Amino acid sequence: MSRTRVLLLGAGFIAEIHAESYHRFVPDAEVVGVYSRTEAHARAFAERHGIGRWFTNVDEAIASTDSEVVDICLPNDLHARLVIAAANAGKHIIIEKPLCLTIEEADEMIATCKARNRKLMYAEELCFAPKYERVRQLVREGAIGPLYFMRQCEKHSGPHSDWFYDLKRSGGGALMDMGCHGLAWFRWMLGKDVRPLTVYAQMQTGLLHGARTRCEETSICIVEFDGDVVGCAENSWAKLGGMEDRIEVCGTGGVVYADLFMGNSALTYSDKGYGYAMEKAGTTQGWTFTNFEEAFNQGYPHELKHFISCVREDTEPVSTGEDGRAVLELMNAAYHSARIGQKVALPFRPKVSRPIDLWLGEGA
Amino acid sequence: MSRTRVLLLGAGFIAEIHAESYHRFVPDAEVVGVYSRTEAHARAFAERHGIGRWFTNVDEAIASTDSEVVDICLPNDLHARLVIAAANAGKHIIIEKPLCLTIEEADEMIATCKARNRKLMYAEELCFAPKYERVRQLVREGAIGPLYFMRQCEKHSGPHSDWFYDLKRSGGGALMDMGCHGLAWFRWMLGKDVRPLTVYAQMQTGLLHGARTRCEETSICIVEFDGDVVGCAENSWAKLGGMEDRIEVCGTGGVVYADLFMGNSALTYSDKGYGYAMEKAGTTQGWTFTNFEEAFNQGYPHELKHFISCVREDTEPVSTGEDGRAVLELMNAAYHSARIGQKVALPFRPKVSRPIDLWLGEGA
Amino acid sequence: MSRTRVLLLGAGFIAEIHAESYHRFVPDAEVVGVYSRTEAHARAFAERHGIGRWFTNVDEAIASTDSEVVDICLPNDLHARLVIAAANAGKHIIIEKPLCLTIEEADEMIATCKARNRKLMYAEELCFAPKYERVRQLVREGAIGPLYFMRQCEKHSGPHSDWFYDLKRSGGGALMDMGCHGLAWFRWMLGKDVRPLTVYAQMQTGLLHGARTRCEETSICIVEFDGDVVGCAENSWAKLGGMEDRIEVCGTGGVVYADLFMGNSALTYSDKGYGYAMEKAGTTQGWTFTNFEEAFNQGYPHELKHFISCVREDTEPVSTGEDGRAVLELMNAAYHSARIGQKVALPFRPKVSRPIDLWLGEGA
Amino acid sequence: MSRTRVLLLGAGFIAEIHAESYHRFVPDAEVVGVYSRTEAHARAFAERHGIGRWFTNVDEAIASTDSEVVDICLPNDLHARLVIAAANAGKHIIIEKPLCLTIEEADEMIATCKARNRKLMYAEELCFAPKYERVRQLVREGAIGPLYFMRQCEKHSGPHSDWFYDLKRSGGGALMDMGCHGLAWFRWMLGKDVRPLTVYAQMQTGLLHGARTRCEETSICIVEFDGDVVGCAENSWAKLGGMEDRIEVCGTGGVVYADLFMGNSALTYSDKGYGYAMEKAGTTQGWTFTNFEEAFNQGYPHELKHFISCVREDTEPVSTGEDGRAVLELMNAAYHSARIGQKVALPFRPKVSRPIDLWLGEGA
Repeated sequence: MSRTRVLLLGAGFIAEIHAESYHRFVPDAEVVGVYSRTEAHARAFAERHGIGRWFTNVDEAIASTDSEVVDICLPNDLHARLVIAAANAGKHIIIEKPLCLTIEEADEMIATCKARNRKLMYAEELCFAPKYERVRQLVREGAIGPLYFMRQCEKHSGPHSDWFYDLKRSGGGALMDMGCHGLAWFRWMLGKDVRPLTVYAQMQTGLLHGARTRCEETSICIVEFDGDVVGCAENSWAKLGGMEDRIEVCGTGGVVYADLFMGNSALTYSDKGYGYAMEKAGTTQGWTFTNFEEAFNQGYPHELKHFISCVREDTEPVSTGEDGRAVLELMNAAYHSARIGQKVALPFRPKVSRPIDLWLGEGA
Repeated sequence: MSRTRVLLLGAGFIAEIHAESYHRFVPDAEVVGVYSRTEAHARAFAERHGIGRWFTNVDEAIASTDSEVVDICLPNDLHARLVIAAANAGKHIIIEKPLCLTIEEADEMIATCKARNRKLMYAEELCFAPKYERVRQLVREGAIGPLYFMRQCEKHSGPHSDWFYDLKRSGGGALMDMGCHGLAWFRWMLGKDVRPLTVYAQMQTGLLHGARTRCEETSICIVEFDGDVVGCAENSWAKLGGMEDRIEVCGTGGVVYADLFMGNSALTYSDKGYGYAMEKAGTTQGWTFTNFEEAFNQGYPHELKHFISCVREDTEPVSTGEDGRAVLELMNAAYHSARIGQKVALPFRPKVSRPIDLWLGEGA
Repeated sequence: MSRTRVLLLGAGFIAEIHAESYHRFVPDAEVVGVYSRTEAHARAFAERHGIGRWFTNVDEAIASTDSEVVDICLPNDLHARLVIAAANAGKHIIIEKPLCLTIEEADEMIATCKARNRKLMYAEELCFAPKYERVRQLVREGAIGPLYFMRQCEKHSGPHSDWFYDLKRSGGGALMDMGCHGLAWFRWMLGKDVRPLTVYAQMQTGLLHGARTRCEETSICIVEFDGDVVGCAENSWAKLGGMEDRIEVCGTGGVVYADLFMGNSALTYSDKGYGYAMEKAGTTQGWTFTNFEEAFNQGYPHELKHFISCVREDTEPVSTGEDGRAVLELMNAAYHSARIGQKVALPFRPKVSRPIDLWLGEGA
Repeated sequence: MSRTRVLLLGAGFIAEIHAESYHRFVPDAEVVGVYSRTEAHARAFAERHGIGRWFTNVDEAIASTDSEVVDICLPNDLHARLVIAAANAGKHIIIEKPLCLTIEEADEMIATCKARNRKLMYAEELCFAPKYERVRQLVREGAIGPLYFMRQCEKHSGPHSDWFYDLKRSGGGALMDMGCHGLAWFRWMLGKDVRPLTVYAQMQTGLLHGARTRCEETSICIVEFDGDVVGCAENSWAKLGGMEDRIEVCGTGGVVYADLFMGNSALTYSDKGYGYAMEKAGTTQGWTFTNFEEAFNQGYPHELKHFISCVREDTEPVSTGEDGRAVLELMNAAYHSARIGQKVALPFRPKVSRPIDLWLGEGA
């Protein structure tokens, strides 16, 4: 059986991780083309990864490669249009988080994919991160008894690309960028049939990046789930010292802590410093937590292998457009809560162009 | 290009890890047969891993599968005979550590493989463990300046199988079983052209397993390398609480610490306990260091992928029979040192049937 | 100058810590009497600590020792009456947390002590815990730039004595028992002139102790302070594996983490188990985090030494009745918030008999 | 009862720690005088610590204060003469490690103190470090079963004062400076009646400090004790990143790890850096392990309190001149071993002016 042909849209940070993951860990997939609006980026990316074709026109890219899968690693505001275009072109879709900017978009994306019988695979890698999956297995096994609390923290000193700071493109700050991970992971841990009841959020802005964005730089988002389980997603663009991604899971029979970055690292003291310690590490002089196999430890290879397998064997992915939509709804509720200082009950059906408008005020 | 056909000799602990690693991470390889002298083990292993054929006669296994590679995961005393048999049958060979029991065997194994133009690939997974490889890269990059000290500790509460305790089969205890890792890794870190000058060793016996073995249960082995670099390999069969595998690397510009088990784990408190925490963890009630992707973190997939690639592309493996022989020489010197209480200069050419005889006395 | 005479009211867990701290670290103080309503407890405590007199009548104890300081380590519902009685008897007072049950009580206690010119010293040991004080000093020094977030977690598997579960005596659960620490510590870190603006709280009950209490077993309490600083106090009576007391402090120039229990411990694996690992550790078989100098690391000696010094030198304590009152107000607001699902603005002036009534409903 | 009067000889790093420890934790002692050969140091030290008198002539200091205890914090080569002088002047003596330079000196010091009926108290603070004492208690309690291995590592980037580098004054390098701690601690853990049988040592020089000293910069020293217990003392003057002081204790029923510096610290990331992280920390920018109560955690207050109590109550100290002598003998054997590459059997009676001569060669 031949390899599954993948078209990669985007040539930035996350596209690099996808390309590396396909290459090293997903032998059943082949990246046949890459798109970036900047020619130099597209060409360099293709050369670096040995990809046959590169494009600067996204529609041409979709039309002129006979790919079966389009893997979208582009800014949030492009998600809806491109998913719909790709589905209409008969492609299965891998879409990076967050799903899109509005609930309406989400509904249309899901409906189009359904109508075209294409898979809409929502790339939530935390559902595949091997250490976190080990924790999920422990919980399933009853190691810590019935669950009543989960926390996921994801924090760093600010995003890779400028478009994240532009709320018209990103739809929001740290919560949109990273809170989506924690919220998706809570649902994954509990099982998707466990309903979220309310959302409360606390946000801060103007910490490190006030000069260039009105987006929230920190967010604490508390979700109450049916069965008296509480999830707490904490996110920051204002935390120095490198990437933080960790969880705490409490049951009445025990507790588990896991840390994907510091908790997997070698500990280094370097007088002179060195090239790279971990994502957004800051200085590498003095003590550093040196990471290895970062993409693997975050679950990207496992995720992409799963998605390619779903396409090849026509099975249901564990993370779908519906999941992305549910996370988007929670984030919308969180922004609204941060504005009004109250828990927001779910389901929540806002009418805004961007989630963050619910916090900053309509048309912000 | 079709997949490389591998015959697996052995159906125990390490054979399981190899089979899982091939299956998940080495798409270019296919395990086509498995041998165990115990029919039930061979059959169950084949079924569990979807392997087409199983054997209880090792020579028949080698003769009747058209494998290109024989991967030997059997007790130490069988290594020499089977490597030679496989080479004579035209197979490339992956041989688990240690290489064999005597220097004479090593020489014959190497000579036979050379004569037959077959690859003798010495399975030292620490040369592939991703965290340790990250450390090696740091050192190469100059992050900690010129190296002057390395330690590798590998300790647990005793081996999986009874044959390890039988010094006629194993050739020695904790040093033979695990010291080979540290010694190989020192050479890998320094570069194989850096000569070891002397070996000193300190051993203990009769701790946990005195009733069933005369083998050393602990070993501290100090190697002086050219250029005033010291390596210290520490090993134990008497350390409770689960597998320990960690390194400490000192240079005049810094230091690095890395830990493969505790240092990659989730931290769990379980009231009732659960199924599995890590290799030889003991109890899982109370606090445990829960591991994930153990085989990956120890480098097995990377190692086997590399070996298969060497066969397919006819390139030189990073770990060869000569490396295994060099490690064996160091271990022989270590046993002799433990007996006489002095540093032993290298090269060292003992005439004994088993390395441990140099400690316990000839014909022990 | 002679030693300052202290009367200790209470012979339970916290009284033990006070007695040990005076004895080992506060040479200027002398415990001259101890009260417990249970004769056997009072007598045994006095003998164990070499205290001259013991009492089972608290008023007699206050009247018949010529103590200068009364140190109150009794259940929360007794605080107000005994502080007032002691002040009226001319004693300076050390009062364990929380200050009392109602704002009215607090006002009366403060007024009485003021009228009698007696010191009301509120025993908040986190303001003295040496590791946390080191962190405070780092922050003052500018090591992490302007502060924008603080978290303090204090969690264990449930209190020492039954009265904590009786909301009529305790006034509330995990928040009253331990949340008071975090809230006091936020004020201490920021400076007491930085006003808290709002409080939000999330609580859970019926986890481990549902059969014997209606008190909250977990609490997450978010406080917004003037200057856009957020504090998050997290507390639990449902966390197995031993005491947790840790902080996280974020500034725009860095971050600090500190852990008083796991983070100061020796790491032990014990096959058979042993006597004591840390407060509420659960099993001591397997891996444990073995503590040392627990009282010292929590700051009790420093706190009591400071209080005794304030009495001797007639200086102002760093933690006073006003501080205890401010914390009580925050806790009242938190209970109210947990009920209504909204942020509560400060100042907050409830009229309830017990803080937890604000969550469970009046007269609960 | 009045306070015990202490004369402090020395005004350097360790004298500071003693002065602080007396002041904060040993109320029964009073430092009545301080000596430094440098007037400015003596005066400043006295002022800083509120000490009544300061001296630049050591004999005058001993003669003209009516101290009961002389506490010697001066370079190694002065130890013997001053202990003898102080004993002859009728003083009890606290002597910092190592006891002195030669076995002959040790014998004379011990004999003089005995003849004068003065206490010779050997200041080995590891016998008092609270975390290590907790570990000793665990071992005594049987938590880890019969002991068979102990390691103590003490490493940093080089000593505080120049005299350490001058082998005529120090008598040796990292082993003399810090190895004495591990060797003393092994004896303390095992009980002093457990005889050491052999010593083996491996040393390195010319790493960080080759331009200014011929002293060993690293030392690994393996001691075999009666009952098949092995101790391994590891020391370095060439380890960057701050002070390391940690232990590993193995028994057939478990294992304990404890770390006095990193293992007690707050973890800080500071963009700009700050004043002080821990002893010899190097940079404070980036990640650091921030220490607190360093003197307390190393056991100085407990040690000095014990010594003062021994004087006041005329009891036997847990660490005496005989202990210092036994450690000195082990260090002598270690230097000899490092020269000859063999285990050295004990007892060992060398005739050299300085221990390091046994490694470098007589008259080096």
